[in-house]
Formats: sequence, C-alpha cells, structure tokens
Amino acid sequence: MFNFKLIKEDKASKARLGEITTNHGKIETPIFMPVGTQATVKAMSSRELEEINAQIILGNTYHLYLRPGDDLIARAGGLHKFMNWQRPILTDSGGFQVFSLAKLREIKEEGVYFRSHLDGSKQFISPEKSMQIQKNLGSDIVMAFDECPPYPASRDYVDKSLQRTLRWAERCQAEMEGIENQALFGIIQGGIYPELRKQSVEEMLKFDFPGYSIGGLSVGEPKEEMYKMLDYTTPLMAKNKPRYLMGVGTPEDLVEGIYHGIDMFDCVMPTRIARHGQIFTAVGRKTIRNAVYAEDFSPLDPECDCHVCQNYSRAYVRHLLKRNEILGVRLTTYHNLYFMLNFAQQIRQALAAGKFIDFRDEFYQNYQLK
Amino acid sequence: MFNFKLIKEDKASKARLGEITTNHGKIETPIFMPVGTQATVKAMSSRELEEINAQIILGNTYHLYLRPGDDLIARAGGLHKFMNWQRPILTDSGGFQVFSLAKLREIKEEGVYFRSHLDGSKQFISPEKSMQIQKNLGSDIVMAFDECPPYPASRDYVDKSLQRTLRWAERCQAEMEGIENQALFGIIQGGIYPELRKQSVEEMLKFDFPGYSIGGLSVGEPKEEMYKMLDYTTPLMAKNKPRYLMGVGTPEDLVEGIYHGIDMFDCVMPTRIARHGQIFTAVGRKTIRNAVYAEDFSPLDPECDCHVCQNYSRAYVRHLLKRNEILGVRLTTYHNLYFMLNFAQQIRQALAAGKFIDFRDEFYQNYQLK
Repeated sequence: MFNFKLIKEDKASKARLGEITTNHGKIETPIFMPVGTQATVKAMSSRELEEINAQIILGNTYHLYLRPGDDLIARAGGLHKFMNWQRPILTDSGGFQVFSLAKLREIKEEGVYFRSHLDGSKQFISPEKSMQIQKNLGSDIVMAFDECPPYPASRDYVDKSLQRTLRWAERCQAEMEGIENQALFGIIQGGIYPELRKQSVEEMLKFDFPGYSIGGLSVGEPKEEMYKMLDYTTPLMAKNKPRYLMGVGTPEDLVEGIYHGIDMFDCVMPTRIARHGQIFTAVGRKTIRNAVYAEDFSPLDPECDCHVCQNYSRAYVRHLLKRNEILGVRLTTYHNLYFMLNFAQQIRQALAAGKFIDFRDEFYQNYQLK
Repeated sequence: MFNFKLIKEDKASKARLGEITTNHGKIETPIFMPVGTQATVKAMSSRELEEINAQIILGNTYHLYLRPGDDLIARAGGLHKFMNWQRPILTDSGGFQVFSLAKLREIKEEGVYFRSHLDGSKQFISPEKSMQIQKNLGSDIVMAFDECPPYPASRDYVDKSLQRTLRWAERCQAEMEGIENQALFGIIQGGIYPELRKQSVEEMLKFDFPGYSIGGLSVGEPKEEMYKMLDYTTPLMAKNKPRYLMGVGTPEDLVEGIYHGIDMFDCVMPTRIARHGQIFTAVGRKTIRNAVYAEDFSPLDPECDCHVCQNYSRAYVRHLLKRNEILGVRLTTYHNLYFMLNFAQQIRQALAAGKFIDFRDEFYQNYQLK
C-alpha cells in the first residue's frame, strides 16, 4: 500500500504538511531522509537511526547491485531484513550513479552499458533491470530509471535526454505492474529550461505515479537557478502527490525547498561533513577538528538535546577526530543526522501552527550561511 | 576507597571468586577489562559498553599524556567525565608504551627519556610523573611505573631492571601518599626466571599495595613458559589482594589464568581482531570476511545472545567489512567484547557453583584453539 495525505497547505508560501503511509509505517512530511548507500547509513546503527527518529532511509540501487548483489539481498529476505531496518526505505534507480561513478558508459535506447567503478567489469542497467533490482531489494518507494543530465548541458541534449527518460518511465511502470507493496515515483527532468521542465511534468502526470521527484537539480548549477526552477516547477505538479527533491540538501535548502512546496529531501552531506569533522549548530556549521575547540568543554551544539550533546564535549569529540578514533565520526554523524531530522520536525511543527514564515525568518537571523 | 573481597576459592584449582569495590562501583572478579587506549574503547560508545556489562575499562597513560594531555583531561573533570564513563577505570603506568612505542628511549635511574612516536618531541616520564599523570586522569586503579623487559632478556638484565622497578615502586607509593580515591597496584616482574619472580613478589609484598599485577608475560615467550611462571608466582602472592595479569588475553588465556589464580585481565586483542574481521564464537575464532560467509544468513555466533547476534547476519557483517563500512567494525567489536565479558561471567558462575573444572573441560572440548 502507498498513500499520501495532504494535511495542510501554508497560507504564506507553497509549503505543505502531509503524511505518507507505507507497509513499513508512516512518514511525516516535510521529511529529511538519511542516505544508506551500501545498506548502512555510514557510521550509524539501525537502532540509533530509530532513536533519532529517522522515519525513512535511502538505499542505493547501483551500489547494492554491484555489492553484495540484489539477488543475495533478496535471498536474505530483502533490504529491510538484511540491514535490520523495519521502517520505510526508498531506493534510487541507480541512474545517477551510473552517470556519475561508472566508467566508459554508453547510453542507448535499451539502457546503459558501463563498467563497474569497483572492478571494471562490464555491466548493463535498463529501466527493466533497475526495477528488477529494486524489486529484489523490496524498498517501499522505488525510483524510475532516468538520465540525470550534467550541468551545464545544451537545451538540445536535455531535450533528447528528457524524451528518453519519458520512454524509460513507461517501461519502468510496465515492469512494476502488479506490484502492490512498492510505490514507483516518476522523475521530472528538464535541466534549467523552464519549457522542458513544464513538458516533463505534463508528460509525467499522465503516468499517474503515486509520487514524483524533481531530478537534475543540485548538480552544480547556482543555488538561485535551483530555487528558480523549483518556484516554476512545483505549481505545475499534482497537489495530492508527494514531491521529492533528490540529493538536496543543507538546512537552508530544506527551508527553501519546503517554501517552494517540496515534501521529501535526501542528502549525503550531513554524514559526509561529519566524517570530515564538521557539525551543524543552531548558529551555523562548525569545524570541530579546529584547534579553537581543543579545550571547549561545551556540547557540540549547546541548543541541541541529542544524546551526543547531552553527554560529550567538543574537546572530547575533537580529540577523537584528531586521533582517527571511530567514535569521533560516530558522534558527529549522530549529531548531524539528529540536527537535520529535528530541523525537519521543527518545520512540521511550525507548519502545523501556521508559523512557517516566522520559522524561516528566524532561521535566517540565527543561522550563518556558508 | 578500594576494597577486595575474596568470596570463594575453587577446591580443584587456584581459581578464585571475588569482588572489588571502588568509588565508581563494584567489579566482580575474575574480570576481563576492555582497553580504551585513547579515552575510547575503539569503535564502542560508553552506553554500548554499559549494555554489554563492561564493569571496568582501561585507559592509557602514555597515549593520553601525549594527546590530548592529562592536564586537559584534568580540566575536563577527569577521564571519567571526559569520556562519559561512570564505572571504574584502570590506567596503566605508561611504562609499557614507553618501552614498546616510543623512540630513542634512554632509561636512567630518575626515569625514562624518550621521543614521542607521534611527533618526535622530547619527553620524560619518571615514577613521580607517571603518578601525576594518573592523578590528573583520576582513574580508580593506578599502576606503578615499571620497566617491562623484553623477551628474551638475560638474567642479569632482568635482575637489574627488577631492582630499579622496586626502587621506582617506592617512589610511586611516596608520590601517591594521601590519595584515597585511587588505588596503586604494584607490578611483579622477573621475566622467566623463577628466583627473580620470587624476589619480586617478596619485595613488592612489603609495600602492601592494595593490588598486584604480573607484568612481563605475554611479551613473546611460549605460552607454556607463561603458564609455568603463573603457576609458580601466584601461590607466592597475597591471597587477600587482587591479581592482575597485564595484556592477557584470549578466551583460553582467561581459562588458564583463572585456573592459576588470576583475577583481572585486559587485552586489545578482541577489539583488534574485530577490526580485521575476526570474531569469537563458542567453537572458536572465525574470519567473517572470508568468502565462505558471503551468503551465510546465520548470526555471527549462533550460541550468542548479544544485540549483534540477535539482529544481524554473517552475510551482512561480511558485506559491511568488505565495503569498509564503519558499522562492520562496530558490530564485530561489540560482539567480541560481549563474548569476552560473557565468557568471564560464565566462569564466575561456574566458580560460584563449584564447577570451574567442568567449565574448563567443556571449553577445551568445544573451542577450537588456533
């Protein structure tokens, strides 16, 4: 089963409050989804993810297809059981990684030929294959196999790519026919060309997918371009379907995405910067590895009520990071994910109280942007 | 405060059941103590250590003195507070690391001059300095500063070293005078020379330390040499004081050490082999990274009731280890430490029931030695 309930629309913006229901539980939107590329959200255990109230996590089709193999995961009982995570999972289509990680790729109408970035082995993923992999993984939300064109790309290239992505969407839908426990999301492309975005939305709407994502943003274009595209695209989209902005983002991206009507976000950034010793705080990012924190016995974020901030100091975390101790990365990762999940929750509360614009104003007053 | 209560002596061996009381709580003996070299038991959080019922952990004087500095830890409120661990801590004297890790060391009567293995800086640790560092750390059990001679070493060298270690023990005791919350343990040396071991015990007994460790074993000598030395040394030691065998060991070492009258053990081995993908099971060690476990969906150890074995499979842990995911090392470390702590607890239960020899026989029947 899959259901999206639109609970409330903000009066002063395009922001929405909603709720998704899946076989593995409910997801409150707007939501931030931690990324678990290789069947693990890096450095976190599944019960820690539950503790910080992660409601849904991502899995990566490309990575899991190569290692350990989706057939192995199917024999393990699916991705939920394999990684000991009983809440919802969204899997991407593998498309983005094929285009960003794989080598010697060749895009044909039937699919993409490429070589594995791990061992150079010849591989092929088609729309059908991507669906078969995701069926093996057993994710609750399945993404259509698309091409995500690079930035910059010519209008002509983006157009041709978009048409193929539409044809691929049809093949994905056909391959998923009869599957009831996995919801297939369509992906809207079109680069930074408004008329292509419009065409993509209109054509995608015809498929009546249970949800849609906006792809091809946050791929190197200026932030203002991204927000302009969102501002243009979301009003064209169905109101009664969840909208997912792929690969985004930062706290400020969440505020702006939600402002423009986005319901779902994912990004590796909170976990990646954690591994480099950077943390989120209520007043902006801080590089906790820096010498200035060597004798700072205050919490990572004095305003945070997470387990790490209640029990550990900046000085201790810095010591661990400097000594390459695993616990250092565990603590920064835990805090950063808690920060993002708690941030989304605060936004949901502000939306419920009809105070999202106040929240947004306050955020920009307190949070120092990089 | 520090107290050791001898609860029971085994009738068929030298094994003993006891209880140590410190300001940070009680410790049941025989006990295995996880090693937290740099103010963290590698890959573990303090609440995970509590969950697996670690009753006492080790800290490393040499490492913490160099980074982040014992003065910083003192300003943080001591090692317990710094690392968020409220149960007992034992710190070593730094001696072993000065002799094994540091460069260009020069042993003089006043102490040891050496260069840091981290940055080559000139350093000096004396018996007094080691005590001052451990006072700053605030550990519950403090080890005397000694020289641990290498193996092999001539009788003459071990003898001279032993005499100096005795003079250093006196200086350590003087430096710790008036300190009530930290118990100073003396270290018995003497290499593999029985008469030197005997002399060491007799001289050390005069100091009336609240506990004693046996040092200079498990430094490369054959196992039978170690057991022979234990068999010879423990009967000479005070019955009403805890006996600590430093840097030991494996499950089989615990069984044999306890058989010979040892109460306390520590070793980095369970956490170190975990990082290399090796785990303990009821039937022996297994290298879970091996291809044979790729599709093995059973727990790491089917007889284990730890959180990892209840929730994760060998196939999943192998996948994580192969992909260098932090969670892989977290899970093997958690299991291995649980195994050792649970193993010690089973021995305590066997001792309480008067069935230690049965336990030992059964262990050798089931557990495949390397």
